[in-house]
Amino acid sequence: MARRLPIVTTTKDLRATVKSWRRSGKTIALVPTMGALHEGHLSLINIAKKQAQRVVVSIFVNPTQFGPNEDYSAYPRDEVGDWDKLTAARVDLLYTPPVEEIYPNDFSTRVEVIGITSGLEGASRPRHFAGVTTVVTKLFLQALPDIAVFGEKDYQQLLVIRQLTKDLDLPIQIVGGPIVREQDGLAMSSRNAYLDTTSRSIAPRFYAVLEDVSKELSGGRPVHEATFLGRDWLEGAGFRVDYLEVRDALALMPVGQYVTAPSRLLGAVYLGPVRLIDNVPVAPVKVQ
Amino acid sequence: MARRLPIVTTTKDLRATVKSWRRSGKTIALVPTMGALHEGHLSLINIAKKQAQRVVVSIFVNPTQFGPNEDYSAYPRDEVGDWDKLTAARVDLLYTPPVEEIYPNDFSTRVEVIGITSGLEGASRPRHFAGVTTVVTKLFLQALPDIAVFGEKDYQQLLVIRQLTKDLDLPIQIVGGPIVREQDGLAMSSRNAYLDTTSRSIAPRFYAVLEDVSKELSGGRPVHEATFLGRDWLEGAGFRVDYLEVRDALALMPVGQYVTAPSRLLGAVYLGPVRLIDNVPVAPVKVQ
Repeated sequence: MARRLPIVTTTKDLRATVKSWRRSGKTIALVPTMGALHEGHLSLINIAKKQAQRVVVSIFVNPTQFGPNEDYSAYPRDEVGDWDKLTAARVDLLYTPPVEEIYPNDFSTRVEVIGITSGLEGASRPRHFAGVTTVVTKLFLQALPDIAVFGEKDYQQLLVIRQLTKDLDLPIQIVGGPIVREQDGLAMSSRNAYLDTTSRSIAPRFYAVLEDVSKELSGGRPVHEATFLGRDWLEGAGFRVDYLEVRDALALMPVGQYVTAPSRLLGAVYLGPVRLIDNVPVAPVKVQ
Repeated sequence: MARRLPIVTTTKDLRATVKSWRRSGKTIALVPTMGALHEGHLSLINIAKKQAQRVVVSIFVNPTQFGPNEDYSAYPRDEVGDWDKLTAARVDLLYTPPVEEIYPNDFSTRVEVIGITSGLEGASRPRHFAGVTTVVTKLFLQALPDIAVFGEKDYQQLLVIRQLTKDLDLPIQIVGGPIVREQDGLAMSSRNAYLDTTSRSIAPRFYAVLEDVSKELSGGRPVHEATFLGRDWLEGAGFRVDYLEVRDALALMPVGQYVTAPSRLLGAVYLGPVRLIDNVPVAPVKVQ
């Protein structure tokens, strides 16, 4: 039997539904998305379903996290496809607020995390994380879930949201979901839809290089040397490199000459106008 | 029978108590204070008791809302007096977190309201409101009350917190409590303790001038003329004037030549090193 996908577009209706669940003792998970859903999102929904009894998915393309020269108006939208996927995934509620519901005319509050937001994506995309942390705080407080699930593909974002949640005492548990990849290794992303045939054929090399650099690092190659090599390999494959950096896995602090604690290799590259990000774990060098 | 005043110092214990109340269907009010309690605070507690079944008072002298040249370390503390007053007021819970409970070492989040924070106190005390809105967001999310009560003496702060609460969808109703005054008209304030005998004898003129200027405005005197006069009167009485301004009562927007909507006259003055603030309503000019 086809199951109807319940949908709400206002905080009031969202809260009424969540409240009725809570009254009957159900635990609630929120999976915030910007739509254009793919297997990566569906894996987060599956995690949510395992950890809570009711799952809310929000779709909101948040204008304030896009820079002036970024792809807000061009960001992929796929209402029909999203609807079908969420219905098939048996999500309990879809929340799709219009922009005015999130940002009324007199809206004037900003939530910012400093420190962990300053390098990597924060360096390349000024104000991006302030947009993310403000909208995530709002979505959390609108839905009031027990847990919220975010993908590790946006690894820095995941850590920023953990810090935000801890700092503001938001009574919500943050759960990270592993990156889901295409058969050829390319990390799933709504932005992959921008890639033309040539770029799409090059794109998987991004992940391959990250894996190779990670092995070099764990094998004992110095950080500067390994990332220099990595940039070289990426440029050789046809990417323009925005950044390629090794950071500690928990606080994203820069690491020393060698990787001595669980770390993360994070990269952002361009293929023509399309910007891709990805990251892989780096195991510490084994002491002989 | 003397009643014990329950006290908690951690978010964990605060939440456990609030949760047990909520489970038994009780409504909860929070009255955030910086201690050194006086009749003004007690009036807020009475409002809280009328509107909710359980009342939490927090005492936390928040370092981040004091400027580098302000009175953080000198701010009046009166633990014994506070304890007696809260016990007599039959408050249900006192929350007195140490600084590390509110700001752990890695704390790095800031909540800011723009616009309404930029003039008046915001102009005289840069970063003051960012400190206030950050700590209030935390206290709200730690206590998770149904209502929170703030005094109208900090009129701009009250409106800033209303804006914050609306903007971030905090599920809390903000209630304002009227200013409580000494017999001679001086608004109650913990900082009145700083006044020496001479200053204390001058201080009540502040409120008297505000009332006189308010009458001039409602009687049809142009805003610039009335506030100019008011400054003159204050300086004549021995105050140094920081600001004296008329703003609309809801959004604190500057008003035109005449007061045509419910407004507020707000002032800040110095008596020697002591800074006092106060405000009074201004009724619109009656159209003949």
